[in-house]
Amino acid sequence: MQRISKLFQPALIVPKNATVKTHDITSKSQKLMLEQGLIRQAGNGTFYLLPLLQRSLQKAIDLIDQHMAKIGAQKLTLPLLTSAELWKKSGRLGSNDSGTPTELLQTTDRHGKVQILGPTHEESITSLLATIAPVTYRQFPLRLYQISTKFRDEMKPRFGLMRAKEFLMKDLYTFDVDRDRCSETYEEVNEAYGKLFSEIGVPFVKVAGDSGTMGGSVSHEYHFPSELGEDQLIQCPRCGIHSNVELFPTLAQRCKSCNGSETFERQAGIEVAHAFILEDRYTKALGATCLQPNGKPASLQMGCYGIGVTRLIAAAIEVLSSEKEIKWPTALAPYRVCIITPKAGSKEESQASSWVVKLYNDLQTIKHCEGEVIVDDRTQLTIGKRLLDARKTGYPIIVIVGSKAIHEEVFEVHNQMTDGELHLSYSDTLTTIGSTLSATTNRKLIAAQNTGNKVAQEL
Amino acid sequence: MQRISKLFQPALIVPKNATVKTHDITSKSQKLMLEQGLIRQAGNGTFYLLPLLQRSLQKAIDLIDQHMAKIGAQKLTLPLLTSAELWKKSGRLGSNDSGTPTELLQTTDRHGKVQILGPTHEESITSLLATIAPVTYRQFPLRLYQISTKFRDEMKPRFGLMRAKEFLMKDLYTFDVDRDRCSETYEEVNEAYGKLFSEIGVPFVKVAGDSGTMGGSVSHEYHFPSELGEDQLIQCPRCGIHSNVELFPTLAQRCKSCNGSETFERQAGIEVAHAFILEDRYTKALGATCLQPNGKPASLQMGCYGIGVTRLIAAAIEVLSSEKEIKWPTALAPYRVCIITPKAGSKEESQASSWVVKLYNDLQTIKHCEGEVIVDDRTQLTIGKRLLDARKTGYPIIVIVGSKAIHEEVFEVHNQMTDGELHLSYSDTLTTIGSTLSATTNRKLIAAQNTGNKVAQEL
Repeated sequence: MQRISKLFQPALIVPKNATVKTHDITSKSQKLMLEQGLIRQAGNGTFYLLPLLQRSLQKAIDLIDQHMAKIGAQKLTLPLLTSAELWKKSGRLGSNDSGTPTELLQTTDRHGKVQILGPTHEESITSLLATIAPVTYRQFPLRLYQISTKFRDEMKPRFGLMRAKEFLMKDLYTFDVDRDRCSETYEEVNEAYGKLFSEIGVPFVKVAGDSGTMGGSVSHEYHFPSELGEDQLIQCPRCGIHSNVELFPTLAQRCKSCNGSETFERQAGIEVAHAFILEDRYTKALGATCLQPNGKPASLQMGCYGIGVTRLIAAAIEVLSSEKEIKWPTALAPYRVCIITPKAGSKEESQASSWVVKLYNDLQTIKHCEGEVIVDDRTQLTIGKRLLDARKTGYPIIVIVGSKAIHEEVFEVHNQMTDGELHLSYSDTLTTIGSTLSATTNRKLIAAQNTGNKVAQEL
Repeated sequence: MQRISKLFQPALIVPKNATVKTHDITSKSQKLMLEQGLIRQAGNGTFYLLPLLQRSLQKAIDLIDQHMAKIGAQKLTLPLLTSAELWKKSGRLGSNDSGTPTELLQTTDRHGKVQILGPTHEESITSLLATIAPVTYRQFPLRLYQISTKFRDEMKPRFGLMRAKEFLMKDLYTFDVDRDRCSETYEEVNEAYGKLFSEIGVPFVKVAGDSGTMGGSVSHEYHFPSELGEDQLIQCPRCGIHSNVELFPTLAQRCKSCNGSETFERQAGIEVAHAFILEDRYTKALGATCLQPNGKPASLQMGCYGIGVTRLIAAAIEVLSSEKEIKWPTALAPYRVCIITPKAGSKEESQASSWVVKLYNDLQTIKHCEGEVIVDDRTQLTIGKRLLDARKTGYPIIVIVGSKAIHEEVFEVHNQMTDGELHLSYSDTLTTIGSTLSATTNRKLIAAQNTGNKVAQEL
């Protein structure tokens, strides 16, 4: 049985060696995650990801793996250390005096070789393809991804996991034999992203994006709309075009597609994913080719597709939570059900324990509940105090096994998603939890809401 | 259906930008893994872990997670970047002129802060405990682990994944309120290690080890005996004591426990795991305390327990394989069954495909087979050539759907573990595969072989 009393979930205590100052807490999600023992700050922009958050992270990873498998993407691991030589070849090592863009962390080994701790791995994966080039066209499309730690030496890390120096990212790289196939892949991956984000269940928008320093021609971003977002998104209420404002002249207020008749609506968004068609930007520089049907080698057409995994989780909390209570998308909640037991020394204490064990075990057999139940057995605390804490941690369903359970076989079931509270018989408790979780994990409301997006790539 | 033709498994081609020279291939496992497209070298001591190997890696991770869960260990993520200040506090930053031991990779951020890319994380986790100290004794024992990339700036990386600059390691840290509880934890974790290694199924020995630079008092190592091993292990044939030779005076040839009557037997071993009782070596330096029942704070008693995950896989291949063919422990094989289809253009080709689909689907319903079957559909190659390749890759079971399948409903089943070849009816093929895999995944032969180990800690 999973017990909260054994869980390593240290509550917020301002560290004595104060690397964290209260004014460093710059977002609601960061504050809530610190207070509820999901993360702790280690350094400037680095965090400990504690056991409850680790569970959410694993769920996000599993979901990503499932959706990647569906489009035939294969998982691998690229080394975290990439030779600076490769970054020189691609032209991304920078051109300032020291030759290094300031966001790239570097390390020099004992033999004097400079290695990059990269924010992204285009050079590394393309180099891998180059060492085996030319590969026959029959081997493509090739879709390779990893989920690994990335680094960005931010001037000012902020918003907790949302803009950290060290973060978990899923990066998929695709290789196709020509531009048309590359576009087909692009559509397919974007469709998979749509399904993935629908399943996660946080409202999102897909917008035309800026290719920026990545190079390439086409780019789309996925955002969770939020006031805290550092990106400004625009959409035309008439034609439905969505875009990052970066693509527009600073002062453009009106939609060209609608002949300027409509003023753009604006909202801020937290970017959680980004897709790029890179064409031969990297493959040409590094020599990654395929052998065409005519027997001649040609540069591979490449795409890259990132998802900020730790950022995604922080952004989900940012968007869904109130100032006082975390709300998780059910798909990412660390546990889906929390059972609260009577206080130590109460009349109910001894009689309740068999109910708790029975409930815990019976829930394991219900769909969406296996391994998803935690018991708050910190019986030195009152039920009320633990209920407040469980609500703050955001368990989607909380069941109280209190005096009513003993005397009337009635269980108090709190649904965090609807703020509802029900008093149910034992069998109704089980069926209600089962149906509530089935409904939330299956709903495709968000999907319906988002499929109508028309994206302003052509603008 | 998983198809080899779609698998990214590039065969050995000496890279054009030759960072890998043939004489850099220093072990059998490295050679086989390169040749079969499991890994490719990226730099000096860094490797791409390709999709087949990634599957093995995931299996090792899942097994470790299961065994850690059984002893109540909680998974988390510590940042890869650890402040050099913490290493100064623990006294491990070194005392040479530059203040840095040569095996520690460092990076300096834009604010001039020096960060360590650590081979191990005692400082980091102890610092986490210290920021919330003192914690009540009720919170203990506390067992926290991660599986993450570690770094060691080896002078001469070698043997492929066995001594790499960058490697995947599982590191568990335990905290107890006193020395006795710490010893109990030590026994419990070592017992879990024994079960884990038995389940993996590679012969192993547990020996008394040297605490070395870690500090602490008690230490044990887990080795896969192998000529390639860099550690020399000794055992007394009479009293059964096992130890790393490091613990003995250079010239000791005889067992003291047996009054020198017995000469030690020696064997080389590849260290795959190491357990340490660290006592208060780190907790005292960094201020990680607990509040005792008497209300006073006391330094926590710490243990640490590492498993080299990438090394473990390479070492398993090193130990079990022949010069020409990989042999996996079944628990870590990337796929357990490989189905080989008829050659393109053969008479059997069209008729075989329905058999292949049926076999593939039926195998998914057999225990130990779900998700474990891959079809070698590279039909441009003969069955014979693909059989050789499948044997070399080491799939434990290979099924050939050839002309006999069409005309006589007879399937050729190769068992890599016994080198056996059977010609079976369809239903016998299914039951034989099921029973073979059940037997190999359940056998506890290795466990029995190892439980008698007497370890020479007291020497």
